[in-house]
Amino acid sequence: MTKNENISCSVGTPKEIKEDGSFNRQTNRFTTPFGEQPGELPVEANRYRLLWSPACPWAHRAVIVRKIVGLEDVISLGTTSPMRPRIPHVDWEFSLDKDSVDPVLGVQYMSEVYLNADPEYSGRPTVPVMVNIQEKKAVNNDYFKLTNYFETVWSPFHKENAPDLYPEALREEIDDLNELIFHEVNNGVYKCGFAQSQEAYEEAYETLFSRLDQLEQHLSQKRFLFGDYITDSDVRLYTTLIRFDAAYFTAFNTNRNLIREFTNLWGYVRDLYQTAGFGETTDFDAIKRHYHLSITISPDKVEPTVLPKGPELSIFHTPHNREKLSGKDEKFLTKK
Amino acid sequence: MTKNENISCSVGTPKEIKEDGSFNRQTNRFTTPFGEQPGELPVEANRYRLLWSPACPWAHRAVIVRKIVGLEDVISLGTTSPMRPRIPHVDWEFSLDKDSVDPVLGVQYMSEVYLNADPEYSGRPTVPVMVNIQEKKAVNNDYFKLTNYFETVWSPFHKENAPDLYPEALREEIDDLNELIFHEVNNGVYKCGFAQSQEAYEEAYETLFSRLDQLEQHLSQKRFLFGDYITDSDVRLYTTLIRFDAAYFTAFNTNRNLIREFTNLWGYVRDLYQTAGFGETTDFDAIKRHYHLSITISPDKVEPTVLPKGPELSIFHTPHNREKLSGKDEKFLTKK
Repeated sequence: MTKNENISCSVGTPKEIKEDGSFNRQTNRFTTPFGEQPGELPVEANRYRLLWSPACPWAHRAVIVRKIVGLEDVISLGTTSPMRPRIPHVDWEFSLDKDSVDPVLGVQYMSEVYLNADPEYSGRPTVPVMVNIQEKKAVNNDYFKLTNYFETVWSPFHKENAPDLYPEALREEIDDLNELIFHEVNNGVYKCGFAQSQEAYEEAYETLFSRLDQLEQHLSQKRFLFGDYITDSDVRLYTTLIRFDAAYFTAFNTNRNLIREFTNLWGYVRDLYQTAGFGETTDFDAIKRHYHLSITISPDKVEPTVLPKGPELSIFHTPHNREKLSGKDEKFLTKK
Repeated sequence: MTKNENISCSVGTPKEIKEDGSFNRQTNRFTTPFGEQPGELPVEANRYRLLWSPACPWAHRAVIVRKIVGLEDVISLGTTSPMRPRIPHVDWEFSLDKDSVDPVLGVQYMSEVYLNADPEYSGRPTVPVMVNIQEKKAVNNDYFKLTNYFETVWSPFHKENAPDLYPEALREEIDDLNELIFHEVNNGVYKCGFAQSQEAYEEAYETLFSRLDQLEQHLSQKRFLFGDYITDSDVRLYTTLIRFDAAYFTAFNTNRNLIREFTNLWGYVRDLYQTAGFGETTDFDAIKRHYHLSITISPDKVEPTVLPKGPELSIFHTPHNREKLSGKDEKFLTKK
């Protein structure tokens, strides 16, 4: 991953379109790691608040991992509306909270915690972001590494017998696959949706569906990406797949096939959806509102007012029969 | 059908939106019937030119029937571009022809033949329209009845052994079904796509998919709507179904299911697509360009520039195995 593509969730802006019409996200601003070394962000209970929007796949992955490993009582969660204000500029707003203010930080807009941290901050305020509660300052919006921090240096605060989503023996392989999933799938759908030239769009489309075809094949033999147990890579793939039929297929023109038309990917995404931490953090209403009614790269675009009614969501609860691919009773590897 | 809903193909305008946000098309202007009675339009070879856009389902049905019964040498065909000019107002243009002029009528815009017929004409110029070639005047844009004229009073000009798409014994039943297909399916997708309120959209969506579910059931027993032979009703249902996955599902928010997800409707639409007169008059490129890049109800809407790449079109040629539902070798009833 080049530094320029270390992204997090918000809308693209025209300056993020390259000359050939392809989409190229802004760089993240706050990337200091969590850890015990000097200069690193201290790992402490109740020091930070995680801000997210349930619409956003980059933020969703952090919320899934936080739940699975049991950091809910250690890192609190602030939730923005999927419908973004655009005046004076695109932002995220705490309009779901009383008086439209986050009850812990007392801010109305996401941009406030960015400006508290850097009064010169001129990028888009993005989610996920970890905020120092006392100072009300953004300290880390590095979504690419955030789940890995939760899985590793935050382990002293994990719940008892917490799943190990990032086993040491597999980390190199997980990192490699995450890189590929990032470029071709997670950001791949955005490259389709935000492309401003037919060529850039079609290139991203071909790359995306080639990778989905390969993953479809891979998942015909394995229950999860690395076999019998769910890992960090599954969390990352899930957040795109679960949004695909409800949002990307239509809103981002990724319309070769629906995920429910792939035999194995469709079973796989339902298997995860029906797993603790996944389905319960998936908010289809927020996802649909965000992608269909409140996402744009053109500030002058008139947003639609009618929310597409499909797809039927009850089908995510149907039997997936993926257990037969695994020799284990449990879906998670538990730390020794 | 109320007179107000006797429609033909063009874009809707804001004045066609009712107070509750539902879509209500303009009335057709030129509805004098073809026939031998005084005041009717004479049925004569080479007197008229049929103008269409391959994007438009209302025009497509007339072109399919013209081909099936063999009126191609009797009524010539002029073809407009699926990409409509919007300045000074929405029109259809002969920009596919040399010098952007229809080679027979010498007009650049569809509106010209309407204004030749009625200098006060202020409605939208629509396709299909039958034009008196000598006078260059629109004489009939009554798409609802046009196929029936082709099937009945135009029969002296039919080819030898022409199929009978509108058998006398079935006319009443065909008319009843056409009425229903019109309201709930043909215009049903437009009611979804052009609705300006959530309620109007959802009502149209429910009606549309209830009817598709019923037709899916109906076609589990019958190869075509009236059994073993293709009728005028099949032509009408086809022109909406064939546009569904490539256009309406995304552009009109009719996204509960793709047609290819229905077992019987999917076999049925391929059966027709693979029948002479249907597939050869189906121009997916025009359909996609029109619905995705050049259709709008809001004059201030910025049209997108990227054409969605899906769906794969080769699948329309796959075996449908619908022959087993019919006891006949032929798909058409031939006149005695």
